[in-house]
Amino acid sequence: MQFTAKDIAFMLNGTVEGDPLVAVSRLAKIEEGSNGALSFLANPKYEQYLYTTQASVVIVNNDLQLTAPVKATLVRVENAYTSFSLLLEKYNTIKLNKTGIEEPSFIHKSAKIGKDPYIGAFTYISQDVVIGDNCRIYPGCYIADNVKLGNNVTLFPGVKVYFDCVIGNNVVIHSGAIVGSDGFGFAPNADGSYTKVAQIGNVIIEDNVEVGANTTLDRATMGSTYIRKGAKIDNLVQIAHNVDIGQNTVIAAQAGIAGSTKLGESVMLGGQVGVVGHISLAKGTKVQAQSGVGRTIKEEGKSWAGSPAIAYAADMRSNVVVSRLPELERRVNELEKIIKELKNRDVH
Amino acid sequence: MQFTAKDIAFMLNGTVEGDPLVAVSRLAKIEEGSNGALSFLANPKYEQYLYTTQASVVIVNNDLQLTAPVKATLVRVENAYTSFSLLLEKYNTIKLNKTGIEEPSFIHKSAKIGKDPYIGAFTYISQDVVIGDNCRIYPGCYIADNVKLGNNVTLFPGVKVYFDCVIGNNVVIHSGAIVGSDGFGFAPNADGSYTKVAQIGNVIIEDNVEVGANTTLDRATMGSTYIRKGAKIDNLVQIAHNVDIGQNTVIAAQAGIAGSTKLGESVMLGGQVGVVGHISLAKGTKVQAQSGVGRTIKEEGKSWAGSPAIAYAADMRSNVVVSRLPELERRVNELEKIIKELKNRDVH
Amino acid sequence: MQFTAKDIAFMLNGTVEGDPLVAVSRLAKIEEGSNGALSFLANPKYEQYLYTTQASVVIVNNDLQLTAPVKATLVRVENAYTSFSLLLEKYNTIKLNKTGIEEPSFIHKSAKIGKDPYIGAFTYISQDVVIGDNCRIYPGCYIADNVKLGNNVTLFPGVKVYFDCVIGNNVVIHSGAIVGSDGFGFAPNADGSYTKVAQIGNVIIEDNVEVGANTTLDRATMGSTYIRKGAKIDNLVQIAHNVDIGQNTVIAAQAGIAGSTKLGESVMLGGQVGVVGHISLAKGTKVQAQSGVGRTIKEEGKSWAGSPAIAYAADMRSNVVVSRLPELERRVNELEKIIKELKNRDVH
Repeated sequence: MQFTAKDIAFMLNGTVEGDPLVAVSRLAKIEEGSNGALSFLANPKYEQYLYTTQASVVIVNNDLQLTAPVKATLVRVENAYTSFSLLLEKYNTIKLNKTGIEEPSFIHKSAKIGKDPYIGAFTYISQDVVIGDNCRIYPGCYIADNVKLGNNVTLFPGVKVYFDCVIGNNVVIHSGAIVGSDGFGFAPNADGSYTKVAQIGNVIIEDNVEVGANTTLDRATMGSTYIRKGAKIDNLVQIAHNVDIGQNTVIAAQAGIAGSTKLGESVMLGGQVGVVGHISLAKGTKVQAQSGVGRTIKEEGKSWAGSPAIAYAADMRSNVVVSRLPELERRVNELEKIIKELKNRDVH
Repeated sequence: MQFTAKDIAFMLNGTVEGDPLVAVSRLAKIEEGSNGALSFLANPKYEQYLYTTQASVVIVNNDLQLTAPVKATLVRVENAYTSFSLLLEKYNTIKLNKTGIEEPSFIHKSAKIGKDPYIGAFTYISQDVVIGDNCRIYPGCYIADNVKLGNNVTLFPGVKVYFDCVIGNNVVIHSGAIVGSDGFGFAPNADGSYTKVAQIGNVIIEDNVEVGANTTLDRATMGSTYIRKGAKIDNLVQIAHNVDIGQNTVIAAQAGIAGSTKLGESVMLGGQVGVVGHISLAKGTKVQAQSGVGRTIKEEGKSWAGSPAIAYAADMRSNVVVSRLPELERRVNELEKIIKELKNRDVH
Repeated sequence: MQFTAKDIAFMLNGTVEGDPLVAVSRLAKIEEGSNGALSFLANPKYEQYLYTTQASVVIVNNDLQLTAPVKATLVRVENAYTSFSLLLEKYNTIKLNKTGIEEPSFIHKSAKIGKDPYIGAFTYISQDVVIGDNCRIYPGCYIADNVKLGNNVTLFPGVKVYFDCVIGNNVVIHSGAIVGSDGFGFAPNADGSYTKVAQIGNVIIEDNVEVGANTTLDRATMGSTYIRKGAKIDNLVQIAHNVDIGQNTVIAAQAGIAGSTKLGESVMLGGQVGVVGHISLAKGTKVQAQSGVGRTIKEEGKSWAGSPAIAYAADMRSNVVVSRLPELERRVNELEKIIKELKNRDVH
């Protein structure tokens, strides 16, 4: 694939500044660009690289004012970042263009598969499964009885979906993620052993959700565990049974949500955050990395930090004092000594 | 599957209150029940829903006293929770009733497989493997040389078991869990590089253990990593080499236990707990979520919290003060100012 | 396999003390050794077991001075630990000696595979893949388009490698690890939804790296995520997009490194450590388990602890005071009361 600056300007509805016939064949960061590469400049912090880059073509904002000569050909657009993202996406679509059904694969005769599928070798599609149009199911996936997938779903290699789960349209699930494993429910017996509580619910993943590699989404005990429309979940995240993840909520890697907890719309959890079970977090709640949330948060749009989590600003102030604690204790010791002297002096 | 209230009362040895011929075909929570659903009421906190539920049949305790009219037919039993769990389990057993050996699968000619197996497609059973009766090995599992499985073992899709590991009876292992991966052992060299220490031990999982999705159980350097009888381990948990997990111990999601540590009987670890290597935790020790245990705990049955963990009650008290630390420091500043004034006044 | 003490001394260039013809057929820890077992003693803390062990042969250091009679035959060597490690490794090599290409497997006709491979059943090798000599690709692995593997690479069962990734020589990757999953990049839209930022970079793993079970290594947005020569990564670790892990750096289980962060050479991260994105840690930095690093560390070779992490020694001192915080607050209350009295006394 090779494109000229003129081709790119045409695709992005931009204007060329420099040689319109210079050609590029790959994408690169502006600071790493070399001859034949296409880069972009969106963040003003990186503007210095514009004057030194070896990239052949750079996409920039219409309103960028040059402060020195530039060797590369520029393509000016309304929004350089959005335009470049669009190109990245097109590039990726070409990379992930597999189609057809590879052999050996296992597809139950009762399964219904939509138009233009890709089903990789060693993938298992069980009884009564329904798969929408344009789905890409990579090798080594497992889709259990009665699972439903919408249109344009991508399951990367090795995704496992347990029975009865429902996956919406335009969902992307990365390798090794598990959808619908049993919730962790055991009833204690008198002798100290436990009896398993059967987990007969399912997981419902709505449209436009992305789930990261090796993440686990447990099925509900009864009813459903929900991942609502547009939620984005990173790698190695644990979502327990009967959790409800709100629309457009974003959860960073290695966070964990305990059973029956409800995260509102547009919540953001940092990496390694833990949230206890049976609580809810209001719309727009933000939780800093490694924090632990132990109670329901009703105020919308607030930031929280610490384990147990308190208001973000208060946690920042407390952390500063924590590092001075030995000094603070020494000062209290000193005060007690002086007070004792003062009292003695008063007495005599 | 459709049952009448009378059928259910007969199965559970209960009595019907209301229409014995009303039929149900699915299970639901009492607050979500609709026409045709069977629910239960065990927790008094949910009693309000009994008077409004749309479920057709509700299982309740013998001693429940109604405070308002109920539309649903009741089935009264000794213990509503236990009875309902029994139904859930039967339901699940019917769901997971696969049998036979699917093709293509890879079964070494030296492997011995017991009665009534289910072996899914794309599952690999290697040399000298021994599998007991009534085992369900779902698609895409891998069982290496010389592994032994007891009776009634369930390996969900994609479980990998490395060579020489031993798995007892009635064990359930969820998708993506890894049993017997190498312990993390490297000896430093003079030039800063590391030489791998070969890990030649195994993992022994005793009877009635459940292991969660994508959990990793490392093999011992020498000897065995033990998961004792009845232990329950949630998703994404890390168990390092030579760890010994006690009988009926329960470990919540994303907890990690470092090498050679020994957890006693009936220990409970919350989510994201970390335990350092080469220590032991006494019987009945409870550790709160996100805590870090850094030393051996000899007292049985105590609760711990914090990182590093201290006694639970003390940690609760300290946490309260942590959130007041900036205020406390301000108060000490103030005291110092006053003291200085008092001393000066004394001097003059 | 059975060897005499004399055989072992010959292999290790050591000398026999005791019966040279006593035979051993397995390896065991000195404290667990029984008749027919070979053990070693390197750590002086374990010397007591030398006088009670039932092992038939024990490898010891040349300079060990006996303080009591020993029943076992000794093999004296320069370095008992190194010698025993060598034997462990040989033992393991014999255990992992699979060769050949098993069926059914999926190997694209354009893939190039080096000498003496092992390719397990249900493994998928895609278009334009290049695999070096002596590689062992266990069952159920997936190697996407254009991936390159060096020589002597081991991929345990179920490893998934996304397209364009590059893996060096002598690399070991454990079961369930994911190499090259998409970085977690989404651009916010005005309506609260997110647009995915295509992730078109790759992961480059250099020589002699080991990657643990179910660990996830995300591909770069553009450019590469690097795991440098000799780095060792434990289980369930998250490495985000564009991270750069330095040579001989060691990362314990369940740690997570956020995007674009650079770890220097010989860094050591404890279990469950979190490191925020876009920072760097200097050569030789050590971070205690469960700590959270939130800023760049420029000083080489220092130890850090806590979340947020501060100097290790300072964190230790602060932790001690944290457990005394309620007491400290009570003392400040008391001081305030006394001061108030003193001031009143002064006034009157």
